[in-house]
Amino acid sequence: MFSLKESEKAEENFIVPYNGHITKKHRQKLNGHKSFVLWFTGLPSSGKSTIAHKVELELYKRGIKTYVFDGDNIRTGLNKDLGFTEKERDENIRRIGEVIKLFIDAGLVVLTAFVSPLRKHREYVKSLLEDGEYIEIYVKCPAEKCAERDPKGHYEKAKLGIIKNFTGVDGPYEEPQSPDLVIETDKLSIDESVMAVLSFLKNKSLIP
Amino acid sequence: MFSLKESEKAEENFIVPYNGHITKKHRQKLNGHKSFVLWFTGLPSSGKSTIAHKVELELYKRGIKTYVFDGDNIRTGLNKDLGFTEKERDENIRRIGEVIKLFIDAGLVVLTAFVSPLRKHREYVKSLLEDGEYIEIYVKCPAEKCAERDPKGHYEKAKLGIIKNFTGVDGPYEEPQSPDLVIETDKLSIDESVMAVLSFLKNKSLIP
Repeated sequence: MFSLKESEKAEENFIVPYNGHITKKHRQKLNGHKSFVLWFTGLPSSGKSTIAHKVELELYKRGIKTYVFDGDNIRTGLNKDLGFTEKERDENIRRIGEVIKLFIDAGLVVLTAFVSPLRKHREYVKSLLEDGEYIEIYVKCPAEKCAERDPKGHYEKAKLGIIKNFTGVDGPYEEPQSPDLVIETDKLSIDESVMAVLSFLKNKSLIP
Repeated sequence: MFSLKESEKAEENFIVPYNGHITKKHRQKLNGHKSFVLWFTGLPSSGKSTIAHKVELELYKRGIKTYVFDGDNIRTGLNKDLGFTEKERDENIRRIGEVIKLFIDAGLVVLTAFVSPLRKHREYVKSLLEDGEYIEIYVKCPAEKCAERDPKGHYEKAKLGIIKNFTGVDGPYEEPQSPDLVIETDKLSIDESVMAVLSFLKNKSLIP
């Protein structure tokens, strides 16, 4: 049974639900941690998804409530009606941003693994959220290195012109200008990359 | 620090993350409860939202991780691009269903307070989820009673023809054929209604 200490009640009167409505603050209190998004951005095959899932595992071991968004659960569900025109890419990011906002409101730590090559898209998501809730992690790796490790052969197909507008080959990637963290995956191992994220979160007191 | 008992590890090998991927089962384990949706359906002003929020408060007190969806957080965010044509109502429900699926995957107990007058819409949401994850609660109340307590005067405006296609006046409401629970809010108080939901959840072993 969860209950608040009397001192907490006195200190933080937001914790008394108004009209029966539980808020983000209540949920963060119940979970024992803040809620925010770790927005991993970078070229295809730079390691975003691998790192995000392994960071999630480490957070899970620490009792932190998490959720990972990537193409697998977004493009096959909520956004399965959307293609890849400019307008549809805008709408794809808009919906992702709105859903992340709901998850953060629900008290969860969200991790996303989208290439998200355009600065305007990343800034849009940030604008939807409160200060400090959007944490940008640039997973940096030269395109040639990404192409070498590409398990699906997308880079090869893009070079041959079979796939058009592929980020890193003939599609633009706008590097983050002031990311909260940069992970250089051509220099760090996966485990070192994960540790870098965890150290960052600890230093910022975002996790215990 | 969260960790599994050795006996649990032996018993349930799904709990060993595959390739670093945390699943719904892991999250339910961490939260200490199952995840599902309590889908409240009923006429406008039947009491859906009031009951859903008060049930959430009671679940919160018991340490259960919850989230409430209603027009306030859906129509102003994720679905703010949608109007009220038949096609847009379909899309509204489709997206709500997909987002609920993600929340259930994240291990949360979701409560929704939408009129959701059409059977096909409710069945669609159910079809997206796994067996037992969709729990339909019919908040039943005669339209005349709902009109009396309507704080926004919508029933009055609908009767005067100012609002068209208003459920309970000139818009259809298809009653649930086999709801998991019926709450008659013209007979029960709010507190009694909330208790009925909690008793149901306890009886089904969905909450401790």
